[in-house]
Amino acid sequence: MIIGKNSIEEVNKSQLTEHTAAVGRLNEQLASKGVTSEDIVNKLADFQVAIPSWALGTGGTRFGRFPGGGEPASLNQKIEDVGLLHALNNSSGAISLHIPWDIPSDPQGTMELAKSLGLKFDAVNSNTFQDQPDQKHSYKFGSLAHINKDVRDQAVAHNKEVIDYGKTLNSKALTVWLADGTTFPGQGNFRNIFQNTLGSLKEIYAHLPEDWNVLVEYKPFEPNFYSMAIPDWGTSHLLVNQLGDKAQTLVDLGHHLPNTNIEQIVSILMMQSKLGGFHFNDSKFADDDLTVGAIKPYQLFLIFCELVDGMKNTDNPDLSWMIDASHNLKDPMEDLLQSVEAILIAYAQAMLVDQDALKAAQLNNDVTLAQEIMQDAYRTDVRPLVAESSRIRNAAINPVSAYRDLKVREELIKERGENTISTGL
Amino acid sequence: MIIGKNSIEEVNKSQLTEHTAAVGRLNEQLASKGVTSEDIVNKLADFQVAIPSWALGTGGTRFGRFPGGGEPASLNQKIEDVGLLHALNNSSGAISLHIPWDIPSDPQGTMELAKSLGLKFDAVNSNTFQDQPDQKHSYKFGSLAHINKDVRDQAVAHNKEVIDYGKTLNSKALTVWLADGTTFPGQGNFRNIFQNTLGSLKEIYAHLPEDWNVLVEYKPFEPNFYSMAIPDWGTSHLLVNQLGDKAQTLVDLGHHLPNTNIEQIVSILMMQSKLGGFHFNDSKFADDDLTVGAIKPYQLFLIFCELVDGMKNTDNPDLSWMIDASHNLKDPMEDLLQSVEAILIAYAQAMLVDQDALKAAQLNNDVTLAQEIMQDAYRTDVRPLVAESSRIRNAAINPVSAYRDLKVREELIKERGENTISTGL
Amino acid sequence: MIIGKNSIEEVNKSQLTEHTAAVGRLNEQLASKGVTSEDIVNKLADFQVAIPSWALGTGGTRFGRFPGGGEPASLNQKIEDVGLLHALNNSSGAISLHIPWDIPSDPQGTMELAKSLGLKFDAVNSNTFQDQPDQKHSYKFGSLAHINKDVRDQAVAHNKEVIDYGKTLNSKALTVWLADGTTFPGQGNFRNIFQNTLGSLKEIYAHLPEDWNVLVEYKPFEPNFYSMAIPDWGTSHLLVNQLGDKAQTLVDLGHHLPNTNIEQIVSILMMQSKLGGFHFNDSKFADDDLTVGAIKPYQLFLIFCELVDGMKNTDNPDLSWMIDASHNLKDPMEDLLQSVEAILIAYAQAMLVDQDALKAAQLNNDVTLAQEIMQDAYRTDVRPLVAESSRIRNAAINPVSAYRDLKVREELIKERGENTISTGL
Amino acid sequence: MIIGKNSIEEVNKSQLTEHTAAVGRLNEQLASKGVTSEDIVNKLADFQVAIPSWALGTGGTRFGRFPGGGEPASLNQKIEDVGLLHALNNSSGAISLHIPWDIPSDPQGTMELAKSLGLKFDAVNSNTFQDQPDQKHSYKFGSLAHINKDVRDQAVAHNKEVIDYGKTLNSKALTVWLADGTTFPGQGNFRNIFQNTLGSLKEIYAHLPEDWNVLVEYKPFEPNFYSMAIPDWGTSHLLVNQLGDKAQTLVDLGHHLPNTNIEQIVSILMMQSKLGGFHFNDSKFADDDLTVGAIKPYQLFLIFCELVDGMKNTDNPDLSWMIDASHNLKDPMEDLLQSVEAILIAYAQAMLVDQDALKAAQLNNDVTLAQEIMQDAYRTDVRPLVAESSRIRNAAINPVSAYRDLKVREELIKERGENTISTGL
Repeated sequence: MIIGKNSIEEVNKSQLTEHTAAVGRLNEQLASKGVTSEDIVNKLADFQVAIPSWALGTGGTRFGRFPGGGEPASLNQKIEDVGLLHALNNSSGAISLHIPWDIPSDPQGTMELAKSLGLKFDAVNSNTFQDQPDQKHSYKFGSLAHINKDVRDQAVAHNKEVIDYGKTLNSKALTVWLADGTTFPGQGNFRNIFQNTLGSLKEIYAHLPEDWNVLVEYKPFEPNFYSMAIPDWGTSHLLVNQLGDKAQTLVDLGHHLPNTNIEQIVSILMMQSKLGGFHFNDSKFADDDLTVGAIKPYQLFLIFCELVDGMKNTDNPDLSWMIDASHNLKDPMEDLLQSVEAILIAYAQAMLVDQDALKAAQLNNDVTLAQEIMQDAYRTDVRPLVAESSRIRNAAINPVSAYRDLKVREELIKERGENTISTGL
Repeated sequence: MIIGKNSIEEVNKSQLTEHTAAVGRLNEQLASKGVTSEDIVNKLADFQVAIPSWALGTGGTRFGRFPGGGEPASLNQKIEDVGLLHALNNSSGAISLHIPWDIPSDPQGTMELAKSLGLKFDAVNSNTFQDQPDQKHSYKFGSLAHINKDVRDQAVAHNKEVIDYGKTLNSKALTVWLADGTTFPGQGNFRNIFQNTLGSLKEIYAHLPEDWNVLVEYKPFEPNFYSMAIPDWGTSHLLVNQLGDKAQTLVDLGHHLPNTNIEQIVSILMMQSKLGGFHFNDSKFADDDLTVGAIKPYQLFLIFCELVDGMKNTDNPDLSWMIDASHNLKDPMEDLLQSVEAILIAYAQAMLVDQDALKAAQLNNDVTLAQEIMQDAYRTDVRPLVAESSRIRNAAINPVSAYRDLKVREELIKERGENTISTGL
Repeated sequence: MIIGKNSIEEVNKSQLTEHTAAVGRLNEQLASKGVTSEDIVNKLADFQVAIPSWALGTGGTRFGRFPGGGEPASLNQKIEDVGLLHALNNSSGAISLHIPWDIPSDPQGTMELAKSLGLKFDAVNSNTFQDQPDQKHSYKFGSLAHINKDVRDQAVAHNKEVIDYGKTLNSKALTVWLADGTTFPGQGNFRNIFQNTLGSLKEIYAHLPEDWNVLVEYKPFEPNFYSMAIPDWGTSHLLVNQLGDKAQTLVDLGHHLPNTNIEQIVSILMMQSKLGGFHFNDSKFADDDLTVGAIKPYQLFLIFCELVDGMKNTDNPDLSWMIDASHNLKDPMEDLLQSVEAILIAYAQAMLVDQDALKAAQLNNDVTLAQEIMQDAYRTDVRPLVAESSRIRNAAINPVSAYRDLKVREELIKERGENTISTGL
Repeated sequence: MIIGKNSIEEVNKSQLTEHTAAVGRLNEQLASKGVTSEDIVNKLADFQVAIPSWALGTGGTRFGRFPGGGEPASLNQKIEDVGLLHALNNSSGAISLHIPWDIPSDPQGTMELAKSLGLKFDAVNSNTFQDQPDQKHSYKFGSLAHINKDVRDQAVAHNKEVIDYGKTLNSKALTVWLADGTTFPGQGNFRNIFQNTLGSLKEIYAHLPEDWNVLVEYKPFEPNFYSMAIPDWGTSHLLVNQLGDKAQTLVDLGHHLPNTNIEQIVSILMMQSKLGGFHFNDSKFADDDLTVGAIKPYQLFLIFCELVDGMKNTDNPDLSWMIDASHNLKDPMEDLLQSVEAILIAYAQAMLVDQDALKAAQLNNDVTLAQEIMQDAYRTDVRPLVAESSRIRNAAINPVSAYRDLKVREELIKERGENTISTGL
């Protein structure tokens, strides 16, 4: 299925009057503070968040999975789905593949399909947390950190292969999420695990093309429940520092212990030029992998304040942005549209923070005023700007309602059937 | 110091044009959804949050305290401060006293002063977590739950005395926050502690006037660090159920373990007609006692959604609303103004939730749509309505800026000096 | 495979000298405090922990599962496995079935097999957190709490069916773990969810035979990530109170928010005669479902102190004890043997607490001494008593090493093959 | 008060028979595994934990403080108290001073007093989290990280002064615990805060004598409640790396977010030769500052396993060991005796781990066996070895009971009175 610009224009038509009025009202509100929205709208329109290939199917928990209909059954169908999202919201112009779930058997064709939909290939992801049917060594007890060199070699080779696949698609980065760790005290030696991880990463690093980066995730627990090989940003930072300039830390919002101040981590990593990417999601308890902004929208805003500030005032390299959520109950496409919108809202709000006033308040230790300034930006209803940034690029004013108006899911079920099951988790 | 209506009118004058325009824009936005704001504004204007007497002074941590100037040194000065807040925001029309910090030695005079400022006396609070100089038995190892009956009797007598003081001021409720518990395994027997607590509360309950309630708080830790006598809502609920109809549970937002779903507790307690009151504050880590809405404004909104729903659809009695925060860094008055505004914002947003649409979405298990409905209300910038609800009662359009324009703190320092220290924590 | 008493006697023989010496040394140590061990050893020997039928296979996480060899592929094979455990440790004399994973198609034969191995059938477990192939309504959005009565009816009928299966095996209790809840704010109404849950449970309760109980679990999150229908003991307690005398709360150690004082919950529930059962496991982060005692052995001891005290000093009914863990990395049988040993150790230590001295210390608020008394019991190396309690019933002095000496797993792989996969999670 | 060796010998006499028997039994048990205890006992006897000078008085919470009698009112009295502890347990041979609470006005006399009691001066501690009466600038909004250079300079000067005081007492390290941070979003800029902290520490570092170290603590929250300047080990590590070889990270057990794997942090820091010291305490919820081993003794053992391993197998420098707890309810001296004993027990257990067997199990991914090995060491009742290590140095077999038998507190109250109040928190 492909959504033509005409269809969207048609859908937009009915909302245009109210939308235009809303933009007008917001511009008036902003003007009263001496702010014009044009620059913000353009930045929003340029902002692209990658969609991971596995996120187009229904996810699950260890207790079960309740698949929906019309899930993409092949790499090309996944790309088509991202194309649909991008047509609707203009901000999903990249896809992030996961090997071996999405091996591009026909890279040329895949590239052309993506190009026709306006999509690029963002970071590729390796997978050494599951065993594949034809695999020689099991990853039950680890992969890059495994105590047995043969297993580590196999995992390193897999990562190199993923880089090679990525090269055929013009990706520029490899993301490594390492599930390795221990589940019981005594199971492994922490220093050995660290050294094995570092050694394996060095081999992978050596295989990186000149213009590539490797992004190293961290996570405090799950699927291991006593220790993880890379449990926190400090460990990831130790590793990427020893790897070199092409290695950076990747922050996944769900990968933190309760109450962690994530925005501070973002700030410090950018200060070190070592923030490489972001996995967006939301959570209340653990790595719940919920829709972005569904639980802690203010935290998301505070993180974006650091990102906006860091992109302007540090030498941190460009970031890979990606959604990394699990869609257990919602239609995955709707969930992704909501997530991207939440990201754009937070980004817009962060751009509204009056930086000069904030700095002045900080200089005076005027804590009350600093809060007023932050919350003034946050409480501003920026949705008209987000909608406008979509509209000016011929996408939908309201992507979720357009998705429903255009009966996308019904159409996909007609094409693909009720019971397709997407590869991935 | 007293702020006259003229002064506020003067301050409002300069903001009136922009305020009127903002209200107009928001009304237009709401009208596009078929909503009129008048009823909401009136409900906001009627909403009153009690200010605890100890919150007018600077708080501290176990590591230190950095007092500010012009703190109120007497009960009357505290009442004057609340009067100033109420003049500024029209929503702080009640004060909650803490005995023995604020014993009304001249109840008649105190009542008249409060009345002249438009203030009522909300729930009175007892204190058995500190020793007073002239006290016979120490509360080091507990009070209402103490293993020694003499100590329990003393603590019960104190609570009865607090009720008696409250009667002279026309209060209608006693709030019991019990610091009792144990700090080490083995220190006490959990069942004994529960039974002693229940026994003491029964004696206090018997002393309650006909039209009074007793509100029983819970808290998982601090100042005891292994167990608390009333650690969670379940224990408080067990107690108030055994006490009778005049006993209810009081929820303090900061008194929960990490990640607790507080809004669900609110809902279930109201279903049981057992939610008696609320202590508002905010926190990131523990019982941080920060400005309301400073950290988790979305959670505050979700809680208000339950309150609005519960007040309409359950038989739960009227609630005591109070701010219970510790102002360590901000001017306490500014902090309180920000807190009240955050409460009103959440209340206004909660009233905007389209309940019919939400129910329909729930019936269809349309999770995406349910989220859209909730966030549509939350993302609406309702600040003009809150400002309007203040203005129509002759209070300030923007209380914090009015507080600064009118140089309230400077005036108080002039009156009271730089180094007064407020009684309380 | 069946382990004969002779085989175990053979294995024990080599350890007997050192074991006898160890028992002698411990008896000497205890005698110096005026304690004799005989009564403790007998109580340990009588203590039985049920093994859940699904625990005999390898578990997994949402990210993957790494099965081992020789897993039981049928109900009878599962029973055989529990028989092996019981032969080895004398304390696993019960099995807890999970329907529909373990439907007894030949109850008579199943009963006889169990009897021949010395096993009883403990509580049966229903499953409404997964869809079965032939199911009319999906449990994607809930079961007993579902907004649609048809779905609730189906879930109720399933629970009744589980009771009926249980009756054929002489079980005496139904355990309900309800996965229902919501994953996003707004998805459901908390009061509706509670009322639907209560209504469904009442229908199930009405189907209970006279001498049965229903045990109601609670859990704060997973598989739902915003709210659970029964999130905490307070909610479970509300439900079982309204159900009647045959309903009790079941505590699963992994089902609590971070830092919860579980032993206090145990104590308060027993005081109310409402603790019905226990699911043992251990965890560091969430519901990690690790080997009992692997992470927090002192907490386990403190819980057992409450259990021992409550069994003696309250009217709480007899408890269902069960291990509920997930064996992702270890051989499930070894994991279970370690879990049962950890339980017996904690039980033995708890029996060693000098209750008279403890009460005296509590009366004096002698916190130092109370800790000394608790830790004196805990630090005592009671393993010889646990081993002795096994030996006197003809089971292994050291069950784990006996399991290995007797090459049980190798034998099972020979019988069942490398790639059998157990039904269950 | 001074405890003579004769008094202790007297007290020991009555326990000697049972103690000797207990040592004999444990030696027999160890011998059955081929282990001899002599080396362990000697290492225990050599192990010294510093007592902080402020820990001799009763601590409190922000809600109150309940002092006990006979608290030391001067630096010399504090040193005397540590001398009493050391006489009783032989393992408290060092004291850690806190400036400005314990300024040595007569260093020569102080040195001599300490020497006469067998005490050394461990790391000195600066205090910039409270204002002193005569202080020019307030630390309300920070010290080393303050936005105002004048305040930073003042805080740097204070730290230099602390070093100078330390030099007069032959201390060799400065411990910096920085309370700086922010309590509200927007209050400060994270990168500025980091850079200011680094700049200040560099100036302090430059003032360090050749043979000194500076130990940099981290803490996630309290007394600031949104962000701390040094919230985690990663930030501390960044700082000490940039400072130089004489800077190391200090780990305080209570300074971590819920569920943190502290032992892994210990291991990784030692691998980097950057673990400088330890503050021992225990906690259930936050920085509860409880008696060591009172809540999580198994975690303490696991940490000691890393310390023992790291001291043997890494180039990490010698560590500063210190107790850092708050004694709110227990007699501080008894609390400290219990803490030191818990540390020695964990150390002894860690030395019992069969490292060769553990390594073999790890090589085989034999998780079951690895757990057996760890828990075999942990479950061993090593108290006789700890007692023996004290006895052979003429200290008490059971320090807590000796403290009571010798009526130390009663004596101190007689000397100092009921109402002395110790300087400090």
